[in-house]
Amino acid sequence: MTALPSAVAAPTAPQVLDRCRALVRPALVKSVERLHPWMGEMAAYSFGWCEVGGAPVAAPGGKGVRQALAVLGAEAAGAPGRAGVAAAVAVELVHTFSLLHDDIMDGDSTRRRRPTVWKAYGTGPAVLAGDALFALAVETLAETPGGAGGVRLLSSALGDLVHGQADDLLFAARPWTGPERVRLHEYRAMAEGKTGALLGCAAALGAVLGGAPPPTVTALDRAGRHLGIAFQLVDDVLGIWGDPAVTGKPVHGDLRERKKTFPVLAALSSPGPGARHLATVLESDAEPAVAAELIEDAGGRTAALDEARRHTAAVETALAAVPLEAGPANDLRSLLDFLVRRDL
Amino acid sequence: MTALPSAVAAPTAPQVLDRCRALVRPALVKSVERLHPWMGEMAAYSFGWCEVGGAPVAAPGGKGVRQALAVLGAEAAGAPGRAGVAAAVAVELVHTFSLLHDDIMDGDSTRRRRPTVWKAYGTGPAVLAGDALFALAVETLAETPGGAGGVRLLSSALGDLVHGQADDLLFAARPWTGPERVRLHEYRAMAEGKTGALLGCAAALGAVLGGAPPPTVTALDRAGRHLGIAFQLVDDVLGIWGDPAVTGKPVHGDLRERKKTFPVLAALSSPGPGARHLATVLESDAEPAVAAELIEDAGGRTAALDEARRHTAAVETALAAVPLEAGPANDLRSLLDFLVRRDL
Repeated sequence: MTALPSAVAAPTAPQVLDRCRALVRPALVKSVERLHPWMGEMAAYSFGWCEVGGAPVAAPGGKGVRQALAVLGAEAAGAPGRAGVAAAVAVELVHTFSLLHDDIMDGDSTRRRRPTVWKAYGTGPAVLAGDALFALAVETLAETPGGAGGVRLLSSALGDLVHGQADDLLFAARPWTGPERVRLHEYRAMAEGKTGALLGCAAALGAVLGGAPPPTVTALDRAGRHLGIAFQLVDDVLGIWGDPAVTGKPVHGDLRERKKTFPVLAALSSPGPGARHLATVLESDAEPAVAAELIEDAGGRTAALDEARRHTAAVETALAAVPLEAGPANDLRSLLDFLVRRDL
Repeated sequence: MTALPSAVAAPTAPQVLDRCRALVRPALVKSVERLHPWMGEMAAYSFGWCEVGGAPVAAPGGKGVRQALAVLGAEAAGAPGRAGVAAAVAVELVHTFSLLHDDIMDGDSTRRRRPTVWKAYGTGPAVLAGDALFALAVETLAETPGGAGGVRLLSSALGDLVHGQADDLLFAARPWTGPERVRLHEYRAMAEGKTGALLGCAAALGAVLGGAPPPTVTALDRAGRHLGIAFQLVDDVLGIWGDPAVTGKPVHGDLRERKKTFPVLAALSSPGPGARHLATVLESDAEPAVAAELIEDAGGRTAALDEARRHTAAVETALAAVPLEAGPANDLRSLLDFLVRRDL
């Protein structure tokens, strides 16, 4: 006798991610095959499908959060998941484009334990491969029936993404204190642009292709944006206090790179002498461990986690405000949990 | 007494370019103002509107061929020129994006006698500014009434542009002779992608916004593509035999950079001993002047000019095949003349 649907345990977030990745993969492969062979190889290398030179391999790719959001966005609107596949392909292509270009801007030489594309293929080719992915993303969406309306969403998210990245680059040149310091609201706007815009766009685009009414599209966009900020905040906490064995990043990495992350900014703007002491330490060559302790003492870690919780709650509020299919909405919630509660 | 319209002399190409630039300028300025201020400054610097730091200046910008084609495309379809302005803005933004990124890939440090954007602002910021212009171009078109249909044209032209640039980068690594040599048909495909696709797209997009029927859109696209190839061929001839005082480029510049241009490729594939002699010279460290003479002797210059004439004729054929408004069609023809018959 077959178990009733209600008796089936809700899928875990990794199961949701796997299901969506499997659904999107053939279309993503087909899309990448349309690229110039050289550009296609760089794209396939980025996705973890091949080595430099094109030999097939199964290297770790990304989690595929954006493609999952697109599929779930369509399903939450009552359409089959396949309705969201073109949106999923478009947002994965855009995400990969942004990784390629960001790695050049940030001078990062490894990603997922392999050389970055610009390290492996050269800066010029990596710039061009990013451009190719960008053009392909827009083309994929533009030629999908019903996708033309989504192009505006996608290009506007792209604009926000660039805006956030530009702010992030400029933050590096600003002082820790004084009138030119980075304010918390500026950080939020940067994180929303750099991380939230494309997550929101993914879910919203899926909903558009799934035939959702405008309020549902807007709600999913907002949910994705808050998810992005929450994700970035958790990432900031892990970048200072995370276990390198789990995060795969060096201990205190963000402090060594002198990144203007939320915990540091919150600690610096806290009342009391701790903030001033921290500022002095940040401006010196002191060990990052010293700064980490001062940030924690000044309440920076707690402030970041509180802020992450506020944005997680805002995701819930956005999702609860519109009618969504129960199953996909639960999948969205388990994905959210997985992304912002990891390792904490 | 006022002269009758028929008595008015047809405008010259520079007059056509000036008129279109003046029509497009306010919308282009408004569009650039929507960018992140830092990205907007890099865009304004590229357009020749400001110096590094933002101080206003009137430095030489581009001729504005693409914006003119978009305006004339709309007018040729019987619409007022202003109907093509959004298309003009989109293609100028895309053109500028491609200049920014190409200068990085080619390592070029000056453009129009000023430092290139990556030289003046850094590679990372120049990559990002290009991305910002790209996103803005798509957004501009997507939010224009009737523009959604044009997004597919634009993204497909972008794909061709990247394809052509990728081929051009790969040509550099290929030998002058042997089975791996660059064939003339590969050169044509490269030039069509790198130069023709966006020129064709400009005229076609203008026509789309001007309400032209599909055959007119296709004809203008084809005309622009042939114009692009012809333009590239003339550029190749000038790059070897042009007067540096007129071109602003060093004498024999393309030969010094060992570029695989049409005259060289045609000379190498000519029958007779001249081709073999030329190959030996190209593989040696001989003076570019020696190679230039051998290329001319082997018929490379004549072949390039003949080929340019064939593509110019193909532009005429494409324009003659569809009904176009007489005035704008004549403006298109005078622009064509101006672009491919300059200084020859």
